[in-house]
Amino acid sequence: MKPQNIAIVGATGAVGVEILRVLERRNFPVASLKLLASARSVGKTLEFKGKPYKVEELKADAFKGCDIAFFSAGATRSREFVPAARAAGCVVVDNSSAFRMDPNTPLVVPEVNGGDLAKHNGVVANPNCTAAILSVAVWPIHQAAGVKRIIVSTYQSASGAGAAAMQELEDQARDFSAGKEIKRAVFPHQIAFNVFSHNTKVAENGYNEEENKVVEETRKMFHAPELPIAPTCIRVPVLRAHSEAITLELEKPLSPEEARAILAKAPGVKVVDDAAANHFPMPLEASGDLDVHVGRIRRDLSNPNGLMLWVAGDQLLKGAAWNAVQIAEELAKLSTKPMAAE
Amino acid sequence: MKPQNIAIVGATGAVGVEILRVLERRNFPVASLKLLASARSVGKTLEFKGKPYKVEELKADAFKGCDIAFFSAGATRSREFVPAARAAGCVVVDNSSAFRMDPNTPLVVPEVNGGDLAKHNGVVANPNCTAAILSVAVWPIHQAAGVKRIIVSTYQSASGAGAAAMQELEDQARDFSAGKEIKRAVFPHQIAFNVFSHNTKVAENGYNEEENKVVEETRKMFHAPELPIAPTCIRVPVLRAHSEAITLELEKPLSPEEARAILAKAPGVKVVDDAAANHFPMPLEASGDLDVHVGRIRRDLSNPNGLMLWVAGDQLLKGAAWNAVQIAEELAKLSTKPMAAE
Repeated sequence: MKPQNIAIVGATGAVGVEILRVLERRNFPVASLKLLASARSVGKTLEFKGKPYKVEELKADAFKGCDIAFFSAGATRSREFVPAARAAGCVVVDNSSAFRMDPNTPLVVPEVNGGDLAKHNGVVANPNCTAAILSVAVWPIHQAAGVKRIIVSTYQSASGAGAAAMQELEDQARDFSAGKEIKRAVFPHQIAFNVFSHNTKVAENGYNEEENKVVEETRKMFHAPELPIAPTCIRVPVLRAHSEAITLELEKPLSPEEARAILAKAPGVKVVDDAAANHFPMPLEASGDLDVHVGRIRRDLSNPNGLMLWVAGDQLLKGAAWNAVQIAEELAKLSTKPMAAE
Repeated sequence: MKPQNIAIVGATGAVGVEILRVLERRNFPVASLKLLASARSVGKTLEFKGKPYKVEELKADAFKGCDIAFFSAGATRSREFVPAARAAGCVVVDNSSAFRMDPNTPLVVPEVNGGDLAKHNGVVANPNCTAAILSVAVWPIHQAAGVKRIIVSTYQSASGAGAAAMQELEDQARDFSAGKEIKRAVFPHQIAFNVFSHNTKVAENGYNEEENKVVEETRKMFHAPELPIAPTCIRVPVLRAHSEAITLELEKPLSPEEARAILAKAPGVKVVDDAAANHFPMPLEASGDLDVHVGRIRRDLSNPNGLMLWVAGDQLLKGAAWNAVQIAEELAKLSTKPMAAE
């Protein structure tokens, strides 16, 4: 891979910091590094490979000379600054929802639809964390036996809502232990020792924004625009990594043994399925791991063509930073320049 | 109701204490009260309606003169001492799994199959907490539109594993906040800031004991021995009350509006379903409540005859103590003496 000039927009956020760490961990060939954030973070310093880098203000002229820009500062910032980055000849890997459903923007999990990367037009969208983790676990089964229907219940960690939300969970747990009053600012409900329906707006169809993203983004990545998917997205008092209980309806029967063998060979998957030791995927163990952990691989007691899975994945890594860097690795292999639209 | 002579076996346990509190709260007509426990609890004193009662040792001759005995000391103790209680003319409300699947023992949630109580032969079984909460929410829908299939993912609190497990969660959260090493003794995995597959043994069919109880007990209560049910039972770091994401497949379509109207009138159900305020069932709010909270009542995006629910219920109350006292209230209305088997 040719060394790349890299910019990170939202470098001081929960995902931005993880992108830096993953670039180090993967020994990504970084020619130059520009850390961009809002005015309030300017002056802060972040380390990359032992060297300090100053955070600069995000402005439209900041992208000159960049090859790849990671955007992780929310959809509003992406809509405002991605055009400037593209105009500067930079390929954007956008972690926000801004371009995910744009028909001209590939939405990519490399293990699932890496082939779509070649069609990019200067922007590649990184999917919603829950959809990314789901798709890594379900895609190999879909390839083998055709997934006709997905029902998924999620157990989503606080850090999915950012660093402040993770801090809120820690603060609430500490105040509870000290017998103090529990305060909240980020989440609409107490998160410590509680679970609640995902804190995004509920749409007309009765599903919240997070759930509708899971449906639409999974369909787009699977190239299956009508795939029936019914999600229930729930927050749990976990700091990091999302878990998911997944029920699949298949075109043809697949035994748990066959599914286990397929998943054991699937890229990005680690099978954690030790019934004797009662050891299955857990967010604590999946935290920090690039792979999605898959276990409780078993038949669906309610459907002969069904299969059930229990999954945990680090939503800051496979659900965000790692998937973004993985896209960048693929882009660097292909070409760092945007291609013409088809 | 005629005042009843009451015994509580396992009076010092998590559920035993709750039974005492519910008897007070319901102003249950208690003529006399006997608190029984293992030798190690003898000498302890518990209060009932402001008066102290000494804990006595559980022995076979302890049940003389009792009308109703609540058993909540595990299946082994129930198997050992229930025969003595029955022989003394006492009707047993058993909270353990010992007699639940016995064809001669009714397994009862009064809102679902209260009619089965009349067939008791000296013992009535109180169902598994997860099955009890599920059945209260699903039964009214089953009556209206015929439930053909149930998929359920649970979010089960620590106290479902007893008072020591609840303490373990509190201790781990406190040690985490203090930067200390986290210890565990009750659960096989860290429960604070983590979720894991239910800590019961996984059976040959790939489902753990808790999940198999949900399947078998719901079928028995619904008088639907073949009803397809696929559960995923998960522990979450919540102190009290279980939550459940439920997907139903129905004989005929039922709109969310129709389902909401049915549930609003259903006994034992409280509809908590305010999409505008993002206010849905939560274990924190369901704790201490006798009713099962039901919300996120919506169509199943993956099935035209489907319906989805999100439920929270206090597993120490509706899932244990309150259901047991409710059974006792019904028994006291019927007769306090065992009837002959049919």
